[in-house]
Amino acid sequence: MTDENTGVGRLIRTIPKGDNRERMICEDCGFIHYENPKIVVGSVCTWQSEVLLCRRAINPRSGYWTIPAGYMELNETAETGAIREAAEEACAVIDIEGLIAIYNIPRISQVQLIYRATIRDGKYSVGEETIESRLFSWKEIPWGELAFPSVRWSLEHWKLISERPDWPPFSNPLGEDGSY
Amino acid sequence: MTDENTGVGRLIRTIPKGDNRERMICEDCGFIHYENPKIVVGSVCTWQSEVLLCRRAINPRSGYWTIPAGYMELNETAETGAIREAAEEACAVIDIEGLIAIYNIPRISQVQLIYRATIRDGKYSVGEETIESRLFSWKEIPWGELAFPSVRWSLEHWKLISERPDWPPFSNPLGEDGSY
Repeated sequence: MTDENTGVGRLIRTIPKGDNRERMICEDCGFIHYENPKIVVGSVCTWQSEVLLCRRAINPRSGYWTIPAGYMELNETAETGAIREAAEEACAVIDIEGLIAIYNIPRISQVQLIYRATIRDGKYSVGEETIESRLFSWKEIPWGELAFPSVRWSLEHWKLISERPDWPPFSNPLGEDGSY
Repeated sequence: MTDENTGVGRLIRTIPKGDNRERMICEDCGFIHYENPKIVVGSVCTWQSEVLLCRRAINPRSGYWTIPAGYMELNETAETGAIREAAEEACAVIDIEGLIAIYNIPRISQVQLIYRATIRDGKYSVGEETIESRLFSWKEIPWGELAFPSVRWSLEHWKLISERPDWPPFSNPLGEDGSY
């Protein structure tokens, strides 16, 4: 039966013909609602070789420091998504330079596309999901107060290519799957 | 009301508190069913400098040639997804060498992660979604019968880095958005 307000019917879980995995299928029209991995887009943003970090105002990991990053939205590119996240979280206008890494966290079906970027004009402030934004020199980075393992990976990989105009992208450090 | 068989309730479309976009929300429990961009994973697979292409047995673009590629599944990495697609479509065991490109097709909210790979032992055949699999030399590639613009992009970018052990990944050719 289809809900008159939404057009969305009841979903059942079964293996569609010609497929090899269970999917969510509308009982009414047969539409298959695929569940897909999610893309996180973000960037290590710098101004005069200092790195922009934001202290999270929301869970998970409220109060901890992160790079500007978040879920990619429909109808944008990965780069425009990373630019949008820097605007939303740190009110910063950034210019993307290249892809630092693709990180995989298969436990939660997440792919992270992390870019190297510069802050245009060096201006930034505090977005809605942020308590505090700050530029850190490499020595000042609060390693013990980072929100997620992939924030550390991003910063460490960024450091490795900081003198390079281009580079092949990194992936997860060996043996690390994003668990705490 | 929640469906007793599936645990999935009725979905309504509204802007959640603290968000800035419409989402699908369960009327019953308030769970937000986010709609996300989809990830395609694939690879340009070679054996002795010839490229493996598969003629599609399914729509869209049935009968046209493609590289082994498809939607990334839950709980896999992008690389294992590309390896799985080569197995499913061409019964080939491949070894991933590096990321050729990230292509964005925002019109259909798709991100494609395309790898360079070699076919282990040179063995391949025809998977369920494939009519015909074949190795092509560069001069033999059926450019007029490729399934999607991004198949052409992948092959052209692969050619540009064919002598390189590593390289920065490409993105869409300038001005191309994946439309036919």
